[in-house]
Amino acid sequence: MDDDKAMVIFQPSGRRGEVPKGVTLIEASRLLGVDIEALCGEKKVCGKCIVRIEEGHFEKYGVTSSKDNVTAWQEEEEKFITEAQREKGLRLGCVALVEGDLLVFVPEESRAGKQVVSKAARDIHIDHNPAIRLYYVEVDPPTFEEPTGDFERICRGLEREYGLQDLTIDIFTLRTLPEALREGKWAVTVSVWNNKEVIRVRPGKVEKAYGLAIDVGTTTVAAYFCDLTTMEVIDTVSMMNPQCKYGEDVMARITFHMTTPDGLQRMSDDIIEGLNDLIEKAIANTYPPKKKKKKKKGEEGPTEYVEVPEEGKTYLRLTRNDIEDITIGFNTAMHHILLGLNPEYVGLAPFPPVIHHSMDIKARDLGVQINPSSYMFVLPNEAGFVGADNVGVLIAEEPYKHEENQLIIDIGTNGELVLGNRHKLISSSCATGPALEGAQLSFGMRAAPGAMERIEIDPETKEVNYKVIGRDAWRKYSEPKDMKAKGICGSGILDVLAELYTSAVITKSGVFNKKGLKDHPRFRINPDNKQPEFVLAWAEESSIDKDIVITQKDVRQIQLAKGALYAGCKLMVKRMGLEKVDKVKIAGAFGTHVDRTKALIMGLFPDCEIEMIQSVGNAAGDGCRAALLNVKKRIEANWCSRNVEYIELTVEETFQQDFMEAMQLPHMTDEFPHLKGIVPEEILKQ
Amino acid sequence: MDDDKAMVIFQPSGRRGEVPKGVTLIEASRLLGVDIEALCGEKKVCGKCIVRIEEGHFEKYGVTSSKDNVTAWQEEEEKFITEAQREKGLRLGCVALVEGDLLVFVPEESRAGKQVVSKAARDIHIDHNPAIRLYYVEVDPPTFEEPTGDFERICRGLEREYGLQDLTIDIFTLRTLPEALREGKWAVTVSVWNNKEVIRVRPGKVEKAYGLAIDVGTTTVAAYFCDLTTMEVIDTVSMMNPQCKYGEDVMARITFHMTTPDGLQRMSDDIIEGLNDLIEKAIANTYPPKKKKKKKKGEEGPTEYVEVPEEGKTYLRLTRNDIEDITIGFNTAMHHILLGLNPEYVGLAPFPPVIHHSMDIKARDLGVQINPSSYMFVLPNEAGFVGADNVGVLIAEEPYKHEENQLIIDIGTNGELVLGNRHKLISSSCATGPALEGAQLSFGMRAAPGAMERIEIDPETKEVNYKVIGRDAWRKYSEPKDMKAKGICGSGILDVLAELYTSAVITKSGVFNKKGLKDHPRFRINPDNKQPEFVLAWAEESSIDKDIVITQKDVRQIQLAKGALYAGCKLMVKRMGLEKVDKVKIAGAFGTHVDRTKALIMGLFPDCEIEMIQSVGNAAGDGCRAALLNVKKRIEANWCSRNVEYIELTVEETFQQDFMEAMQLPHMTDEFPHLKGIVPEEILKQ
Repeated sequence: MDDDKAMVIFQPSGRRGEVPKGVTLIEASRLLGVDIEALCGEKKVCGKCIVRIEEGHFEKYGVTSSKDNVTAWQEEEEKFITEAQREKGLRLGCVALVEGDLLVFVPEESRAGKQVVSKAARDIHIDHNPAIRLYYVEVDPPTFEEPTGDFERICRGLEREYGLQDLTIDIFTLRTLPEALREGKWAVTVSVWNNKEVIRVRPGKVEKAYGLAIDVGTTTVAAYFCDLTTMEVIDTVSMMNPQCKYGEDVMARITFHMTTPDGLQRMSDDIIEGLNDLIEKAIANTYPPKKKKKKKKGEEGPTEYVEVPEEGKTYLRLTRNDIEDITIGFNTAMHHILLGLNPEYVGLAPFPPVIHHSMDIKARDLGVQINPSSYMFVLPNEAGFVGADNVGVLIAEEPYKHEENQLIIDIGTNGELVLGNRHKLISSSCATGPALEGAQLSFGMRAAPGAMERIEIDPETKEVNYKVIGRDAWRKYSEPKDMKAKGICGSGILDVLAELYTSAVITKSGVFNKKGLKDHPRFRINPDNKQPEFVLAWAEESSIDKDIVITQKDVRQIQLAKGALYAGCKLMVKRMGLEKVDKVKIAGAFGTHVDRTKALIMGLFPDCEIEMIQSVGNAAGDGCRAALLNVKKRIEANWCSRNVEYIELTVEETFQQDFMEAMQLPHMTDEFPHLKGIVPEEILKQ
Repeated sequence: MDDDKAMVIFQPSGRRGEVPKGVTLIEASRLLGVDIEALCGEKKVCGKCIVRIEEGHFEKYGVTSSKDNVTAWQEEEEKFITEAQREKGLRLGCVALVEGDLLVFVPEESRAGKQVVSKAARDIHIDHNPAIRLYYVEVDPPTFEEPTGDFERICRGLEREYGLQDLTIDIFTLRTLPEALREGKWAVTVSVWNNKEVIRVRPGKVEKAYGLAIDVGTTTVAAYFCDLTTMEVIDTVSMMNPQCKYGEDVMARITFHMTTPDGLQRMSDDIIEGLNDLIEKAIANTYPPKKKKKKKKGEEGPTEYVEVPEEGKTYLRLTRNDIEDITIGFNTAMHHILLGLNPEYVGLAPFPPVIHHSMDIKARDLGVQINPSSYMFVLPNEAGFVGADNVGVLIAEEPYKHEENQLIIDIGTNGELVLGNRHKLISSSCATGPALEGAQLSFGMRAAPGAMERIEIDPETKEVNYKVIGRDAWRKYSEPKDMKAKGICGSGILDVLAELYTSAVITKSGVFNKKGLKDHPRFRINPDNKQPEFVLAWAEESSIDKDIVITQKDVRQIQLAKGALYAGCKLMVKRMGLEKVDKVKIAGAFGTHVDRTKALIMGLFPDCEIEMIQSVGNAAGDGCRAALLNVKKRIEANWCSRNVEYIELTVEETFQQDFMEAMQLPHMTDEFPHLKGIVPEEILKQ
């Protein structure tokens, strides 16, 4: 090998090649086509590019890797890597330079392509009972005495060995059968869907099958890439919904369909193309995992792969065909648009969907490029505004298996609410609008680098401290110019309203407390629009060279959203004849980041013990994953979709009144006993 | 209207328009885009263009039609039209000239496009139990109290009205559901497949559904276009198999696949394109029949339509979408090629097919353009050389329901044989080669105008009398120049061998009787190839300006074919432990035209009472039709395919010996007692 070059292998992608000595690990990864996260643009400040240098000789690659084959440890790394982690070989990819042969492991969180909302898989209990099962079978070759055809031959073997009966076979799979049988010398591995239909045949013995659980949100699409045989989540991939260009919310998309002749087709084509990209992403850097490091029970973290070079095996990269099953959930409008169903009536009272029931659709019929004979399981819809995604939440959280009254709030562009217990469940939706997700606010933005995700306001000084996505250090521990704030995302919006209220910047009715703020440098009347506004970040802290403010109008928008949600919850509690709820679960990408205390302060939902407020993250996606790995969950999903009673809130008599009242911030101690001790007495009693 | 023009309407196509007075009805049909058969080129000699002039005033068209509106009856018509038929308005289209307004009905047999083999539907008993059933349902529109989705709404109606449960719906149909429901004002007609899946939804009440039973032969493709609600055969359409360009027989096509990289794809694409043309043909000239004239039981003839102008209804022309079901049968190689399955192993001992079992394949997955959600039912295969077409023959003839021993011979390029009774059935195939269909003979040709289809040889003078397709008059009643003979087709080939034998032109071993033929003008040694040959038609009687002869080599080819068939039959009889068979059924296009006495003389099959030899025509197609109209026949088909024991004859010890012996023409009176009195004693005793 050239003395100026070194052999570098990246895991788990397996990409390898020679790179010039002296380049950073990030540069080496780029040269070899591996994407490592580098939010700060290799300025050594984001700590996103942590990788691990493996120690030892790796026979398979003929490489001896060592921590000594990169440049020395540097001070900047201390901020992100502990002493213990350093011992294990962790380094910043933008700091360490290649000096010799290396085997570099890139942990899940350092892999790029997840700038959007990361919807990591939660640990939920799922029984292993996938729709796709693999059966290995050996048969005798045909003879004149027994010239039975290929398919019947393997069917006989499958019945003999596994008791499978009355199997059918998809025509696309049948086309591959004669060659697979002969290539495998009359031994094949058969993928059977729901013990009914053969959807893949591979020569010889194969032990792996993969699937995707996809959650299509109005804004974000996320997929869990799962090993169907071990239930392991191999990867989580996500992307923006490409339909965003047609409008931010579902009504805008429905309107696009109604006003554009081929609008539905275009939106459907775009999301299908997006799914195909996502599938490509899922398989691009993956190969069959071999041995998992044993995780302690409850231990979190990405799946890690350990090389077993002495096995001397070469694993093939996966292809699209290796994905043999997909489950997919979405809100009803996204469901309709993706499937090419007219979404018009979903947007028109009384909002009937075209279908509730789940569907098994051949992926090829939708143009989704996986194993061509495979089905996609489309989760069932509850109602026009409570879709398959909410069914996903339900089968993940299973409120129908508990005595306690659970209120589950899935906050997206539309709020979906479920309330109930093992005896009865009701659901509803409320038009929160996109304000809680950052849209329609002066400086609202999506959860992306530069977004203010945590905000604190000092009740005395009314000074603002905050944290942005892409930077771990809070404002008060940073130089102003290092903050590079750009706007406020969902979780920041919740924070800001709660903080504005508890610091008495605004009153319970949401009006700026002009008296208290008199002469405060952060409070002003905007000379252009005459609106009162409060500065959250000064221009010098921003990457956009502007003061980032929250205006009176912004506060109103947030109040409208939170009011809709609260009023909805309150009406549902009334409908169920309850005094209070036992548990509140907050789902959605939003829910992953939300500060439960602040959500309670803000009055998103009726009062509840702080300890009983749970963030359940992407429960919709978890439900899709449960349905992917356990067919019984598919049956449960259909049961849910028809047994949860949908309540249209807007037709309730008291809705308008409740809604108006709910716009106020919580202040009555009898309605919010748990706020006592959290929100200052003088605020609650105003 | 212009005085020089007349309004002419053709039924059942409904095509109409003004034509100049004085043109023939055939010319008028051409001007209006209707094809009437005119084999003789309007020479008034073929009688194929018989049409019926309707009497009366037809309000719908504003036309008064009368027999007097065409030119007077002419002598030439008497040969083809009886006095009684003349009374009913029948005329020759090439004789009668338009003189005024007309409504002209073109009977099935006069419609053009069937120059190939006409496979008319036989009257066989079929129970009415189609896979596609129509259900009309009215539902309430959605409300806030009951915002149930469209599909569940109609499902509830279908359960209430008809007890249908657990229905699914195809995604393509689901896409049409919201509009159909609203267009029909919440009343729709639903097409349900096998009481399982909704495959079409139409607004309002609809009472018709259509289907095609397709029989794909190596050479010919024929389809019965059926009304699924009445079981009526509306039309029979046929075409050449477009794969013929890749080779005449199945082995040639398999070889084309093996020697050409995209050979399978090309052949598959061609036949699919052909099917789409055939479907187009089926719907092109059809509209929903209204009232059928009552036929007397057992009365044969084409379906007739009666106009009911007082209803004042306009019926729409059918579209491809109106075809909601297809059943399809073929030999195993054609089955594999059409479905894109590798046919290689079907051509290699021990000839296992890729699949035996029937398949339900979405038409769209094969590119067949009918109602997009519809299935095609592919009949099951028995073995590599006894295909779904033979299963079709079996379910049409049902030998498994009778005590008597039936021998069923389906003669195509490959001979398929079934023998048995209600207790046991065995099947086999024998490589007859294409000689019996006219290929590989010096003057062999397909059944098309000019083909000699009947041949007689005078035992005394050895003079030849014959008849050609497209001309009713035999040679001895015609001027030589009017015969326009071109060659010999299948049925002519059977005739010629039997006649050559009984007139002692050839001996029992198939050798020309040189002594007996000495100096006969029709017998000669061809100076070019030194082959003995016998002239069947002189150059002056031909359209090709050549003597049409049968050579010693031709006779050998026919002997090989008939020997293979006879030896196969004989071995099967032996296998069944029988002395003789009770009934012989001859199926196939060939079987439609065959003269059973001559088939017996020639020794195609073991001796049998002449009365017990039956021609069952296109039994394979009839079986497809039975499966189209009665789903129970589909189950029966699968039973047949796995319960008929396939016997590979070529591995039987005595096969070669039997085959050699069977090439001889029948001569032993003890083996052929029924030939006594039919074949001269001196011939049988040679």
